[in-house]
Amino acid sequence: MGKVWFQLSVSLDGYSAGPNQSVENPIGVDGMKLFAWQFALEAWHRMSGLEGGEVNASTPVFEEAMSSYGAVVMGRNMFGGGRGPWSEDPPWTGWWGDEPSYHTPVYVLTHHARDPVPMKGGTTFFFVTDGIESAVAQAKQAAGDGNVLIGGGPSVVQQALAAGLVDEFELHVAPVLLGRGERLLEGVGTPEVEQIRVVEAPGVTHLKYRVVGRPE
Amino acid sequence: MGKVWFQLSVSLDGYSAGPNQSVENPIGVDGMKLFAWQFALEAWHRMSGLEGGEVNASTPVFEEAMSSYGAVVMGRNMFGGGRGPWSEDPPWTGWWGDEPSYHTPVYVLTHHARDPVPMKGGTTFFFVTDGIESAVAQAKQAAGDGNVLIGGGPSVVQQALAAGLVDEFELHVAPVLLGRGERLLEGVGTPEVEQIRVVEAPGVTHLKYRVVGRPE
Repeated sequence: MGKVWFQLSVSLDGYSAGPNQSVENPIGVDGMKLFAWQFALEAWHRMSGLEGGEVNASTPVFEEAMSSYGAVVMGRNMFGGGRGPWSEDPPWTGWWGDEPSYHTPVYVLTHHARDPVPMKGGTTFFFVTDGIESAVAQAKQAAGDGNVLIGGGPSVVQQALAAGLVDEFELHVAPVLLGRGERLLEGVGTPEVEQIRVVEAPGVTHLKYRVVGRPE
Repeated sequence: MGKVWFQLSVSLDGYSAGPNQSVENPIGVDGMKLFAWQFALEAWHRMSGLEGGEVNASTPVFEEAMSSYGAVVMGRNMFGGGRGPWSEDPPWTGWWGDEPSYHTPVYVLTHHARDPVPMKGGTTFFFVTDGIESAVAQAKQAAGDGNVLIGGGPSVVQQALAAGLVDEFELHVAPVLLGRGERLLEGVGTPEVEQIRVVEAPGVTHLKYRVVGRPE
């Protein structure tokens, strides 16, 4: 069996997005600072069809995050297309172009039903309206022996953690204080965790934990 | 010139103390979990007059924190003795016995004036009633070329960070979620920092940062 995990960048003061999120600023004001370590990587440049970038201690961490899953769960905000019922003209198919880099089934948690959207390269977006447990269960079945990645954003990660559905998680701790925004580890209860891996890299530390128990 | 720094344990969700702090539970409910890494150390046992304990990657980090300062600043709550005017009968002289392990001047931030209290072994407690800038300035003068350690608790650390008085800090990130309590990095603005050292150790990661700038 695979594991259910998430990986997300957080500020030193615990935010995964800045304040005032909008279409122009999807991660909020200064939220992009959390991802500076990622945008510097050659692996990220390559994935985005760009030249250049660095190879450093973050490279294997990033490559693992981008590849080690057989299915993905994400929230409606991360998938995009605005709030409320889905527009049909034109239909929103995500931020990732005709051939998203997921190459797996992706389960989008939403309040609004919609037929599956198959994309080039093996990605199919499924829309789940009956909650996080159902989304993770469907993703597990699709992933088979592979892992399920909770892609984000913070709200979906919180729902999965609070529901006891997460086996492992990795925090990319950026040397940034945002002061305000959307906290990551809030409202998730007090799961018992153990530290399983630390990677020091330029401008970020990658901290990986296993969830070993939950209080009654 | 020395530097002004602090080091403090924090939970994964950013708390430096649990909820419901009291005389019996000075770090709040479950707050002691943040210090499990420290209590396991041979260096901590020795400092406390006990046998046993481990030597591991946290040992030099702990020994540095316990020794590399020429003066200390702490809050009234950390010094103890209750709130309000000082009781004279018996006079409160801290939690640390006749010979505290500081062996330096210690500046206690308080609203209530009091004459200095010299202890055995070189520790003298001075009581500062005109704010964090004054306390740090007095400590710097006393420390000479040595460092000033902001000992805690969280409130004094926050005051020092918000006032731009901190040069470096180290967070001991414990694999614990508290869910509630006293947050460390809250109300401190958005100082610019850079990551300068990461130490992976059993049951904790030590993250050290330098403050390199402050927004206007």
